[in-house]
Amino acid sequence: MGEVKRVRLIVAYDGTNYHGWQVQPNGITIASELNRCLSALLGEPVWVIGGSRTDAGVHALGNIAVFDTRTRMPAEKISYALNQRLPEDIRIQKSEEVPLDWNPRRVKSQKTYEYRIYRGEFPLPTRRLYTYFTYHALDVEMMRKAIAFLEGEHDFRSFCQVNAQVETTVRTIYEARILEDGPELVVRLTGNGFLYNMVRIIVGTLLEIGWGRRVPEEMTDILEARDRKAAGPTAQPQGLTLIRYELL
Amino acid sequence: MGEVKRVRLIVAYDGTNYHGWQVQPNGITIASELNRCLSALLGEPVWVIGGSRTDAGVHALGNIAVFDTRTRMPAEKISYALNQRLPEDIRIQKSEEVPLDWNPRRVKSQKTYEYRIYRGEFPLPTRRLYTYFTYHALDVEMMRKAIAFLEGEHDFRSFCQVNAQVETTVRTIYEARILEDGPELVVRLTGNGFLYNMVRIIVGTLLEIGWGRRVPEEMTDILEARDRKAAGPTAQPQGLTLIRYELL
Repeated sequence: MGEVKRVRLIVAYDGTNYHGWQVQPNGITIASELNRCLSALLGEPVWVIGGSRTDAGVHALGNIAVFDTRTRMPAEKISYALNQRLPEDIRIQKSEEVPLDWNPRRVKSQKTYEYRIYRGEFPLPTRRLYTYFTYHALDVEMMRKAIAFLEGEHDFRSFCQVNAQVETTVRTIYEARILEDGPELVVRLTGNGFLYNMVRIIVGTLLEIGWGRRVPEEMTDILEARDRKAAGPTAQPQGLTLIRYELL
Repeated sequence: MGEVKRVRLIVAYDGTNYHGWQVQPNGITIASELNRCLSALLGEPVWVIGGSRTDAGVHALGNIAVFDTRTRMPAEKISYALNQRLPEDIRIQKSEEVPLDWNPRRVKSQKTYEYRIYRGEFPLPTRRLYTYFTYHALDVEMMRKAIAFLEGEHDFRSFCQVNAQVETTVRTIYEARILEDGPELVVRLTGNGFLYNMVRIIVGTLLEIGWGRRVPEEMTDILEARDRKAAGPTAQPQGLTLIRYELL
């Protein structure tokens, strides 16, 4: 074995068959699969630290993980060797060495999430794992008016699952957009960080606005309430994908 | 029970977990699931006849099935009731009554297939069930030159699995295009009918041309050979989707 080095992975996954990112006593997670395959590959116990701890059923095109190792294998070769061992719904997109004090939770970053809503009379089987289905008409213009209230720095406590333990619930959303991609409506949020279930609660609230059950201007009241009960329900996980994770 | 009537279904499915369309002794198929759920719903034995007998792993946004029934349930309500019973990777998009002599194999139709190729350094987990992955660069212009030779009426015997029992191997391709959709390359073919494995053999041949192992002009020789061995290998099934089935 050689000197200790720290390796950063870019990890893409289909979250359908996992109990989320975070290692937990029951059920296989993305992190537990990475730990298992890395430990076997490198011949030493390995624990990854994740950038974004996504929920069960949520997908990622490029989440981040780091771990320390004494392997002599060059960091940039680990991606290829690890992909040989991982199940096919997890694929390392890149591996590289970073300084020993580099920690994804302490560096500035910008994450972009997309939540996809499939609008149709019936669900489409080939999109069922990656979209939320609704046959009720959505007023896209109302949803656009509503999402605009979220841009900028706000206390997003109302859009955070109550049991989340965080120092502050203030976050900045740099861009909040609703795009149309054929029959799919895409809610795209870019920010410096997202609270537990934040994107899914935002989408659950936007859906109520799109269905006409709330008006866009309520977004301001919801933010000011600083109370989870003021916002709408948490949207189903499978529509959500972490599409970009930029290190600043 | 009422008078016999014939009902036509538009069926969308994710073929990942099925042994294709056609009922067979071992393994669950799209047709066997439709038969099982329709028989339970209508309280009489039901057998569907399919429009396009797709292979294991191949998907469809709108295949066609017909069956006869004495149910008093209005034909257009069957879609809703049947979707309650079907597994979530099969969804009826429409149901309607057709004349008793209507048969999908005897009417003129136009089918469009799309085969998606994901180009990247590593596979993308969320697209693994719906694309063929390659990290070898593809020369798209060469593939476009090659596919143009297929438009029009030709004997496609070279692009047909040898054990297929058909009266004629002559088919007409109305449109053959290669489109780019981000990192995905889409081979789109519209024709009056496709032989067994025809689209997958065409794509297998186009891939060899894209990788520089064959030249586009060989398409003419392959067509003229009328021999399966002259064409390239059969591309993997998961990249293929029947996207449109138009009745003329």
